[in-house]
Amino acid sequence: MRFTIESSSHGVREQLFDLGDIPGVLWTPEGAAAARPLIVLGHGGGRHKKDPDIEALARRLTAECGYAVVAVDVPGHGDRPVDEEFNRIAAENQARAEAGEDLARLIADFQAFVARRTVPEWRSVVDAVQQVAHVGAGPVGYWGVSLGCGLGVPFVAAEPRVRAAVLGLGGALASAGDAARITCPVEFLLQWDDERVPRAAALALFDAFGSAEKSLHANPGKHAEVPAHELDSTLRFFTRHLGRHHPGRA
Amino acid sequence: MRFTIESSSHGVREQLFDLGDIPGVLWTPEGAAAARPLIVLGHGGGRHKKDPDIEALARRLTAECGYAVVAVDVPGHGDRPVDEEFNRIAAENQARAEAGEDLARLIADFQAFVARRTVPEWRSVVDAVQQVAHVGAGPVGYWGVSLGCGLGVPFVAAEPRVRAAVLGLGGALASAGDAARITCPVEFLLQWDDERVPRAAALALFDAFGSAEKSLHANPGKHAEVPAHELDSTLRFFTRHLGRHHPGRA
Repeated sequence: MRFTIESSSHGVREQLFDLGDIPGVLWTPEGAAAARPLIVLGHGGGRHKKDPDIEALARRLTAECGYAVVAVDVPGHGDRPVDEEFNRIAAENQARAEAGEDLARLIADFQAFVARRTVPEWRSVVDAVQQVAHVGAGPVGYWGVSLGCGLGVPFVAAEPRVRAAVLGLGGALASAGDAARITCPVEFLLQWDDERVPRAAALALFDAFGSAEKSLHANPGKHAEVPAHELDSTLRFFTRHLGRHHPGRA
Repeated sequence: MRFTIESSSHGVREQLFDLGDIPGVLWTPEGAAAARPLIVLGHGGGRHKKDPDIEALARRLTAECGYAVVAVDVPGHGDRPVDEEFNRIAAENQARAEAGEDLARLIADFQAFVARRTVPEWRSVVDAVQQVAHVGAGPVGYWGVSLGCGLGVPFVAAEPRVRAAVLGLGGALASAGDAARITCPVEFLLQWDDERVPRAAALALFDAFGSAEKSLHANPGKHAEVPAHELDSTLRFFTRHLGRHHPGRA
């Protein structure tokens, strides 16, 4: 793990890094020294590790909860090199969708394909980041919606260190089998008028989670219109399950 | 409006009252003088105005948010006199359910029948309570689940003073028409394994609310197993929409 560029603002330290060929970013409270909870953020399709929504969430989790937060570029996104295989599959999918194939099915298959790479990558990222002294081996949380849900469900299912997950804007088609293996508390975001995820598929994914404690939060609006108060709810959800790292404890 | 018994504990003043033949209870912060938000609580079937769950919620809304809170007995409940017509209909419904009629339909019809009395009663309670100096004419909120939802939906639809409502554990059969006329923000509680309200009927009721801002909170468990963290969410919901009355402002 190689740290490259570092900066600090508003009490939050931001460190860009490369782990092998995976570019990532780590946010921690300025002056952090001891172990603390770590939140892994999974970005959306076509976005990247420093997408404004990702960065805003990361900065709140760091500043308000004292957590460490990490995000990496999904293959084919952000600072990752062009991936010929991904591009070929994406082009094929576009042609198949235009030819009338079921878009939800195509997206689900593509996400499952990408997850075969991201699940081991993200696990290695947790391994590496928890070796950093100001992160340490605290409990892990996961947050991801849309593509971040499609990739997050298999990651959370595979990674016992994850103790709480916020997921959403995804359907059962991609990952009902993995969802059934998830047992940690889940907060699941559903947009009632989602133009990309059929409501029944999203309800079926919520239904599929094996967790004894899971909450569905549904709000009116399209895929990208999750209301701001859900961000507050996300912070409270993680605080409830992972605790808060008090700044006074460094 | 005639106040009868008064007591105080843990910073909360509790006043029992009668408004005509309606027995009620008013909770306010000790020492309250100025106008503040008022929350109307609707109790569940077979319960009453001082049911432990109702009183616990009332005391938190009073102590933590500075609100005034009022609850009255639904006809045929608590300290209301025995109502021969209600008893007759209840006995008839029991016989019809045992004869195989649809229970959800019977409950819906009964709640609509009761609501024809409670809607004007509750509106007169708001009129009277807002005349009390330490309540005043602030914004009004409503909270009610189960029977409190069946009666609450037509009340909130009829009462423009209600600016925010927490409803739940109810289905569309009773009140989809009234729900469509509700435009204030709604937080709607659904129990995923509700043995009394079919999931599809509850989702249909959420869908029916006319409100631009509405949130569905669904959790695993049976009708009576709403998790404790939803109580915290209720307080935050009312605070977001009605504000908090700071104790310093009396």
